[in-house]
Amino acid sequence: MISQKWKKLVKSLHQKKYREVEKLFLVEGEKPILELLQSGFYVEKLFVSDLFLKKNPDVSLNFELVSTQELAQISAMENNQMALAVVRQYENTMLVPENDLIVALDNIQDPGNLGTILRICDWYGVKKVVCNNQSVDLYNLKVINASKGSFLRVRCFYTDLKNYLVYCVKNFSEALIYASTLQGKSIYETSFQRPAILIMGNEARGISEDILSYVKQEISIPRPMEGGAESLNVAIATAIIVDNFLQRCH
Amino acid sequence: MISQKWKKLVKSLHQKKYREVEKLFLVEGEKPILELLQSGFYVEKLFVSDLFLKKNPDVSLNFELVSTQELAQISAMENNQMALAVVRQYENTMLVPENDLIVALDNIQDPGNLGTILRICDWYGVKKVVCNNQSVDLYNLKVINASKGSFLRVRCFYTDLKNYLVYCVKNFSEALIYASTLQGKSIYETSFQRPAILIMGNEARGISEDILSYVKQEISIPRPMEGGAESLNVAIATAIIVDNFLQRCH
Repeated sequence: MISQKWKKLVKSLHQKKYREVEKLFLVEGEKPILELLQSGFYVEKLFVSDLFLKKNPDVSLNFELVSTQELAQISAMENNQMALAVVRQYENTMLVPENDLIVALDNIQDPGNLGTILRICDWYGVKKVVCNNQSVDLYNLKVINASKGSFLRVRCFYTDLKNYLVYCVKNFSEALIYASTLQGKSIYETSFQRPAILIMGNEARGISEDILSYVKQEISIPRPMEGGAESLNVAIATAIIVDNFLQRCH
Repeated sequence: MISQKWKKLVKSLHQKKYREVEKLFLVEGEKPILELLQSGFYVEKLFVSDLFLKKNPDVSLNFELVSTQELAQISAMENNQMALAVVRQYENTMLVPENDLIVALDNIQDPGNLGTILRICDWYGVKKVVCNNQSVDLYNLKVINASKGSFLRVRCFYTDLKNYLVYCVKNFSEALIYASTLQGKSIYETSFQRPAILIMGNEARGISEDILSYVKQEISIPRPMEGGAESLNVAIATAIIVDNFLQRCH
């Protein structure tokens, strides 16, 4: 039986404001939890079902065995029959451009987009993502799920993006600041350099004006003559730009 | 007032089996409907709200003015306050590789993925998508919405994919058949040729065995040494491969 205290805590963590107060978040489902247990994240509490335990008898952590009904009661996922973990958030420490590429997000709102961007960054070995404070919360369960475990390997830093860029321009002047815009230079004709910060903008409005003034090079994915779509989804655009960046980086 | 007959018909079109019987489908929301009205699609019936009409006084088609409450009753979208159209499906006619690239989908299940793939194809001017019969239905409203209007410009053909490939090998032998797999040749080292068919597989299982035997060249997006993610989402992978295909096509 899950105690009332834990029931209340877990349910509160479905909401951002309580996640911020408690500095905790939830991971649900079999595969994400197995990956979590292999990671360096600190798990405060692990609830598992019989079903989970049968498939994974060697759980390396103290856990509480619960019924699938009880699990359903505290889960945000519709069909979680396996496990739920209460996990400690990492400190929101500054990420700076060393000899690498940082992806910076200006007002990304859709949790599926942020999760997918983390997965793309993880695939390409981009380990640092900077989000402005108005971007969707990393610890939103939809972000965690869409990232398919990549939240464990890609580090996020939430900040005031403008102040962050001011700081980088001053202290990491060798880092080039790129931004994806509609009227930028073709990514196929850009010779990219590292260290770099690549800024991707909001799904509908693109990159804010006050951010653009710190950008050194605006870039675009050119649409072929025969192309019809008005735009690409921001996660798709991130994938294409990072792929081209790494191919054409000297 | 929407007649009972139309109410019943529209609601039935939320389900695939009735869409197939009636050869009709639904488009909902302001922007998709404005694009629809500019297209060659045959609209059987158009319901619009006062709000839609105020913003778009020059609707070029007969419509029925309905209250937002009535619209909500027949809509599948949660917050459609604007318009709903009942649209005729196009004939499921064969698409063959001429001097172009065809994207072929083997068991794509997620409607968001199919919609996003249509949007990517539209952006790059890929006008033909072939889906095996078990792929998610093009006329699913989530596909239509995720495509952001691209379903109007990219043509889909549903078929038995194996028989289709047999037919193409026999009658369009100059067309190269590529498939995205885990152990294929690097896309960065592949010199692509047109006409071509690019096969993308199921989200979890990849491409079926009986399809693979018709593939001329398996290709992969190489993951850098420092990369961590196990895989990429199929729409993301489609975007990266099509982008590289068009860059390296001779």
